[in-house]
Amino acid sequence: MINPFFSNHGPFKLSELINSEFNYASSINNLSREDFLIDDVKNLSEATSKDITFLHSVKYKEQAINTKAYACITKNELFNLLPKNCIKISCENIHLLTATITSKFYPTSTTDDNNHDLTNINEKYKDIISGKNTLVGNNVVIGKNTKIGHNTIIESNVNIGNNCFIGSNVIIRNSFIENNVHILDGVVLGKKGFGFIPKNLKNFRYPHVGYVHIMKNSEIGCHSTIDRGSLSVTTIGENTYLDNQVHIAHNVKIGNNCIIAGQVGIAGSSILGNNVLVGGQAGISGHLKIGNNVQIAGGSGVIKNIPDDSKVMGYPAKNIKEFIRDNK
Amino acid sequence: MINPFFSNHGPFKLSELINSEFNYASSINNLSREDFLIDDVKNLSEATSKDITFLHSVKYKEQAINTKAYACITKNELFNLLPKNCIKISCENIHLLTATITSKFYPTSTTDDNNHDLTNINEKYKDIISGKNTLVGNNVVIGKNTKIGHNTIIESNVNIGNNCFIGSNVIIRNSFIENNVHILDGVVLGKKGFGFIPKNLKNFRYPHVGYVHIMKNSEIGCHSTIDRGSLSVTTIGENTYLDNQVHIAHNVKIGNNCIIAGQVGIAGSSILGNNVLVGGQAGISGHLKIGNNVQIAGGSGVIKNIPDDSKVMGYPAKNIKEFIRDNK
Amino acid sequence: MINPFFSNHGPFKLSELINSEFNYASSINNLSREDFLIDDVKNLSEATSKDITFLHSVKYKEQAINTKAYACITKNELFNLLPKNCIKISCENIHLLTATITSKFYPTSTTDDNNHDLTNINEKYKDIISGKNTLVGNNVVIGKNTKIGHNTIIESNVNIGNNCFIGSNVIIRNSFIENNVHILDGVVLGKKGFGFIPKNLKNFRYPHVGYVHIMKNSEIGCHSTIDRGSLSVTTIGENTYLDNQVHIAHNVKIGNNCIIAGQVGIAGSSILGNNVLVGGQAGISGHLKIGNNVQIAGGSGVIKNIPDDSKVMGYPAKNIKEFIRDNK
Repeated sequence: MINPFFSNHGPFKLSELINSEFNYASSINNLSREDFLIDDVKNLSEATSKDITFLHSVKYKEQAINTKAYACITKNELFNLLPKNCIKISCENIHLLTATITSKFYPTSTTDDNNHDLTNINEKYKDIISGKNTLVGNNVVIGKNTKIGHNTIIESNVNIGNNCFIGSNVIIRNSFIENNVHILDGVVLGKKGFGFIPKNLKNFRYPHVGYVHIMKNSEIGCHSTIDRGSLSVTTIGENTYLDNQVHIAHNVKIGNNCIIAGQVGIAGSSILGNNVLVGGQAGISGHLKIGNNVQIAGGSGVIKNIPDDSKVMGYPAKNIKEFIRDNK
Repeated sequence: MINPFFSNHGPFKLSELINSEFNYASSINNLSREDFLIDDVKNLSEATSKDITFLHSVKYKEQAINTKAYACITKNELFNLLPKNCIKISCENIHLLTATITSKFYPTSTTDDNNHDLTNINEKYKDIISGKNTLVGNNVVIGKNTKIGHNTIIESNVNIGNNCFIGSNVIIRNSFIENNVHILDGVVLGKKGFGFIPKNLKNFRYPHVGYVHIMKNSEIGCHSTIDRGSLSVTTIGENTYLDNQVHIAHNVKIGNNCIIAGQVGIAGSSILGNNVLVGGQAGISGHLKIGNNVQIAGGSGVIKNIPDDSKVMGYPAKNIKEFIRDNK
Repeated sequence: MINPFFSNHGPFKLSELINSEFNYASSINNLSREDFLIDDVKNLSEATSKDITFLHSVKYKEQAINTKAYACITKNELFNLLPKNCIKISCENIHLLTATITSKFYPTSTTDDNNHDLTNINEKYKDIISGKNTLVGNNVVIGKNTKIGHNTIIESNVNIGNNCFIGSNVIIRNSFIENNVHILDGVVLGKKGFGFIPKNLKNFRYPHVGYVHIMKNSEIGCHSTIDRGSLSVTTIGENTYLDNQVHIAHNVKIGNNCIIAGQVGIAGSSILGNNVLVGGQAGISGHLKIGNNVQIAGGSGVIKNIPDDSKVMGYPAKNIKEFIRDNK
């Protein structure tokens, strides 16, 4: 799917990207091809042979071996995980250099104000939107038989399917919403993620150029927040229901038929399988894999991967039988 | 109290209710009276001799013995809990059949869009509402000396007492609010509960035809959400104060003089007595009874009933002295 | 900084303050000077020689010894902690008498409706606010190059610096916001705190006459709520970032360079140092001191003071190494 939300200011020569004022690269090998035009910055799996990518941990070994990226921002210790013909760029702060390069491609992605000038009550939606004070940006697609409440804001390029119900006081930006989805009152979809590089008295805001994808037949409860991905997509699977006040951070991917109860929080980049049940107020740390058919009891704190077909409880979450035995 | 929020499309003959396309009844006894007109679907305690009800667990034994319902959806094992003259309808999926029948009586109750066409800036409220962009539906009652903020939405048939203060960006539907209540900014009252029957790739949305009742002198904090009941009422007692970002699920009943601190979550159908204190971020599971004068420490997770005059802490919540001793 | 948000109805004679209908003082010593005019009610540290203050716990011994207040509401047992020339007023319910006196000075501070009549779309802001339906009160200052989204409400006397980004559906009252601050969608800043004196069937609402101060380069995530102080200030330090759905209660003070992840809650009057990291869903009880460079793991419950440079985890939160060892 092409991301229509951020306009790419590239391509840039490789030498333009790594010689900026933010360049922390300490050694650059194989730069005979520094005039090569780089199209985009993407993650290891999605990068093409004209893109630049980054690798910061051995955890992403598999994706590294198979990347097609032209160049990769990384550190010396990880060079051997990358394909031979991939240009390796070593630097002190991988996240900072990646962020800097991403900002060059997408200069408007560190705040959410890029669409404010464009947003207007678009006359062509007047017949299909019964809600009062609803604001719709440019190039928004709204499907047949979709209803939208009051005071709701739909920013430019958002795509909403058929038979959807969007409540009141909702804010939607940088999002694709499939058919038959319910987005309840006060939801905020597609805001920039909570990602930045800490720096004394002036953090460096990480650009977030991804989007949110809500698959068909899903429901998002009141006042829930779903942040857009940084370089990829935050996904809610088919027929997955979220209750009120749930927070889903950037890059999280949730499978089909999941049930996420009220006030649950899922930190950045974690992946949930299908048929996962998460009880109220449970928390899931970042960068974890939760298998299929997993049940997480309410109030649990999950801090490691959970295999398929498990039931866990407690903080740190462990096998539910073990938890009950230990707490008798 | 008569529920003005959902219009009842009945009565229906009993034979119309249990022979629909969703009919999972496997055996129906005593149907000589299948032409009898059923007025409504209600819970065991509230059903009259012209209503249909349901019984899914032995936990509701007492209510079952005393029900006046004409007919009851249940399973064979529970037949003996019901009065002799109550028609018993056995089916595989009690919740699904009950939901299907409820949807027949109240076809608009599975989403919250039923009032959207009706809502408008009602001219007759112009003198009493100083807030800008405030939307008020039909048949709304607003008491004397009540103040309403900006961008607030009050849907049809809502009743608000005297001397209330309603903040800005508030959404109120399906609710009765007594005198001297404060509803702070961003609260959502009366949305449908998080109830549905899981089904692969297409959950069946449970109808919610109940309402929310906020008793006098109470306060509901910013961004809190209180869902309406499914077949009954979600109640906040007199002089009970909720802090910000609290979530109260459908059918919950909270007594008088309670204090519920920030970010607390109470799952569906739990009942709290009077003078209950719940510390910040504590969670209470569904279908529990919390007695009078109970104190629940912040961050606790309550997963069983709590008797009167107890102080509990931890997850699972236990006697506070025991908790402190175990955590020295 | 002078507080422009609440107009002081004083001065009052000392005899007017302690002989009202709410006067619970049981003994008043040294009242030859009862005609003295009291300017204001302030906390122990901020009170001048023309103010009245209060002391309710030996925990505030240090502040008591050094107070310059003309008079102090307290109890007999604490008399010896106060300076000799400070008039001591003993009463049964220190909080209630303080609240009653504060209400006399600031009669509009127990609700948030004081600004509703004043708020309007102020014509002079039309050129600088591109957001639709944005409401701005009187005497609001908005800095250069600051952007404001849609449906946002900025009440009277609020001061916003340069280069700020304020999202949509935001509500700001009783707040000072410095330069380069991001306030994301749905935030509520400066509402009255969750403070009141419990009383059967009719709690006594505590007046909140403080404000919120957001220092430069900070960010407040979506749907977060930051309550104003009661008699002092709720402060977010420089370059401190809060994620979505965070709740900060009245009088909390957070230092510089802190990172507060999603759904964290911090109860009233707690103080955090600089460079504090708080993981998602962690909770911090009220009236605590969290040192500099502290790390609190996600989901933890902090119920006692934490010294500098500590890492804690669990509920109750303890040294992280100890927690991991105990949970192996």
